[in-house]
Amino acid sequence: MRPRFEKVAIVGVGLIGGSLGMILKREGVARHVVGIGRSLENLQLALSRGAIDSYEGDPSRVMPDAELVILATPVESYASHVRSWGKLLKPETIVTDVGSVKGQLVEHLESLLPPSVRFVGGHPIAGKEQTGVGAGSPELFRGALCILTPTARTDPSALQTVETLWQIAGSTIVILDPFLHDWVLGAVSHLPHIVAFALMTALEAVQQRRPDTGDLLQYAGGGLRDTTRIAGSSPEMWRDILLWNRENVLALLEAYECELQKFKRLLANGDAAGLEREITRARDLRRRLP
Amino acid sequence: MRPRFEKVAIVGVGLIGGSLGMILKREGVARHVVGIGRSLENLQLALSRGAIDSYEGDPSRVMPDAELVILATPVESYASHVRSWGKLLKPETIVTDVGSVKGQLVEHLESLLPPSVRFVGGHPIAGKEQTGVGAGSPELFRGALCILTPTARTDPSALQTVETLWQIAGSTIVILDPFLHDWVLGAVSHLPHIVAFALMTALEAVQQRRPDTGDLLQYAGGGLRDTTRIAGSSPEMWRDILLWNRENVLALLEAYECELQKFKRLLANGDAAGLEREITRARDLRRRLP
Repeated sequence: MRPRFEKVAIVGVGLIGGSLGMILKREGVARHVVGIGRSLENLQLALSRGAIDSYEGDPSRVMPDAELVILATPVESYASHVRSWGKLLKPETIVTDVGSVKGQLVEHLESLLPPSVRFVGGHPIAGKEQTGVGAGSPELFRGALCILTPTARTDPSALQTVETLWQIAGSTIVILDPFLHDWVLGAVSHLPHIVAFALMTALEAVQQRRPDTGDLLQYAGGGLRDTTRIAGSSPEMWRDILLWNRENVLALLEAYECELQKFKRLLANGDAAGLEREITRARDLRRRLP
Repeated sequence: MRPRFEKVAIVGVGLIGGSLGMILKREGVARHVVGIGRSLENLQLALSRGAIDSYEGDPSRVMPDAELVILATPVESYASHVRSWGKLLKPETIVTDVGSVKGQLVEHLESLLPPSVRFVGGHPIAGKEQTGVGAGSPELFRGALCILTPTARTDPSALQTVETLWQIAGSTIVILDPFLHDWVLGAVSHLPHIVAFALMTALEAVQQRRPDTGDLLQYAGGGLRDTTRIAGSSPEMWRDILLWNRENVLALLEAYECELQKFKRLLANGDAAGLEREITRARDLRRRLP
């Protein structure tokens, strides 16, 4: 059944929060969407882009009436947000989020919210290089995966409602344990980011050894550009994601280093057959990517 | 001055060799382009695509008349090609190549060719995921970089002629020492390939530790897809490139591992400021990519 909310509060009206606002309004899921944020300029942009119906700097003026609250600020700030207005929420209110880490963060938010409030963790795997509501679109999540991470405490009907919201947005839903989510995302997203960050800084380090090359980056082709595209992501956001998920990321980095060691060994031994076998394995795995 | 050749032989009529043939013919630089190869099907395709005027399986029927020979087979086969027909070339013939490694390979080819033959090493930094003359285009090299790698033995007028050919193709020319070329390409191309290969095989390794995730690759977003696109490259070609350039690649891998270690240390110490500083450095370097 299509949910219908009188008032929805979106905390953090950026690319993700803003795009969700556009969808809630377009699909008639919310009668009134209030954007909560600190930057007046951004809130006015969100209003003019049709992402929200009104905005508010002070959450205490919105939360007592909200039926659905969407947390879409950087994950680092979730706990302080929930601490500041969690107790104002009325019973049965659904709180959901869009953060890239779950696990302990979900546990922590559940412990901060009153037991009558219904929390559902979510993570849409969508995004672009641009950020901000100016780049938002009601089509942002179409065809994308959205992972929901219920726990033993999650209310089944709240989970069903949040699932329906993401289906309306055009996403495919996957249900994962919050801690398993962090392992999976560590592997397919957080590790690749470090791989790309380290590749960029390594190029600077080797450049310094051979100043006679001129600027090394002038020789870059499409391969390096693709491989390092995600190194252009927000430092603040990635600092927080990597720290929240650091145990998984450290374990994944070790697994990655083992593979690099294998390539080093094959190269050092001039093992042509072994090298071809490993590259073929990588190529075949790459072909399986959706 | 625009060069003009009576007869040009292209050894290996794939994506690169075929595209060059199209350019030589379209621009009137060659009166007759002969494709040399082993696969009749491929040579007939090259003929029908307008990349060559005729083809020949036996190089000894072509080389005595050729004024320009373009080596465009996998680098591993260069030496055996040159051994089989180098002595048939007439004096002053220009031999050039399009290989991704230079350094020792250039020295080796120079030693195999008669002193009267004029060798010029070349490496157009262009390519696509597709291979073969079917994907060839006279526009393939437009706007791309082409590195030429003269040595003390290189004839200046032959270098000038090859430079003009690539300018006609629309490329920007950079002159580099052959050994410096291998260091530079090791950094901006060969290292990124290993980084991507190892990322794919690492994901398979970690998948095996947590079978409860289902297929890990189903969660991949655009970030992983971009970061590993070049892992889809030809295993035979990359085996050879990495082996030819293995000393540089091993040194570059060590530099890369140092950067990974740095990220590991920052994560293990929970050093938020240090992590943000390194990611910001990576982001700023990434923004400088052409």
